[in-house]
Amino acid sequence: MTTQQVADKLVQLCSEGKFQEAVETLYSPDIVSMEAGAPPGQSRESKGLEAVKAKGDWWVANHEVHSATVEGPLVAGSHFAVTFKLDITFKPQSKRFTMEEVAVYKVADGKVVYEEFFYNM
Amino acid sequence: MTTQQVADKLVQLCSEGKFQEAVETLYSPDIVSMEAGAPPGQSRESKGLEAVKAKGDWWVANHEVHSATVEGPLVAGSHFAVTFKLDITFKPQSKRFTMEEVAVYKVADGKVVYEEFFYNM
Repeated sequence: MTTQQVADKLVQLCSEGKFQEAVETLYSPDIVSMEAGAPPGQSRESKGLEAVKAKGDWWVANHEVHSATVEGPLVAGSHFAVTFKLDITFKPQSKRFTMEEVAVYKVADGKVVYEEFFYNM
Repeated sequence: MTTQQVADKLVQLCSEGKFQEAVETLYSPDIVSMEAGAPPGQSRESKGLEAVKAKGDWWVANHEVHSATVEGPLVAGSHFAVTFKLDITFKPQSKRFTMEEVAVYKVADGKVVYEEFFYNM
């Protein structure tokens, strides 16, 4: 798939709330995922499909998604950007908040090999 | 200015080829600019308005821009993304090529405080 095709499919799946399916079908085994920040002592970076799936599983288990808006993609060469606007509740603290972030992805050989998220901590 | 207003103005100025005016009018004195890569021994990161202006001056002096397409912005919270598609000649080598990149910006207090570029090296 081209960068545009991967980008369109990722936006479609995430718009439908199918975040895990996006990871499973579009990501490379060698995916590197970079958060904007990390808790003390932990890394911003997750390496490999299993680590990224585990991060996603934790996220899905700990958040209730009330609404998710995905905008984009903007595609340039092997990279693309989308935005996520999420109305969510962090279940362990019953804390509801909105989160807005820019995500940048890199595609190689038809798979997402890098993702990075930009938001305020 | 809001993130959306800064983003719209940056896209407008860059679409008109006014890259230096965008830096001079929209950037914070404390801007940090991050390239996708750097020559051996040099840094990906430029800190401060003077350093970023100097990088821009070098770029403008060494490239002839045949066309520039700017798409976006996609805005999320304090961040936004745009894409640049440039048809340029690197003047020292008379080498013409196209460059496509995703750029992510962070806005604080109405000024751009961080920019990062994503492209293949």
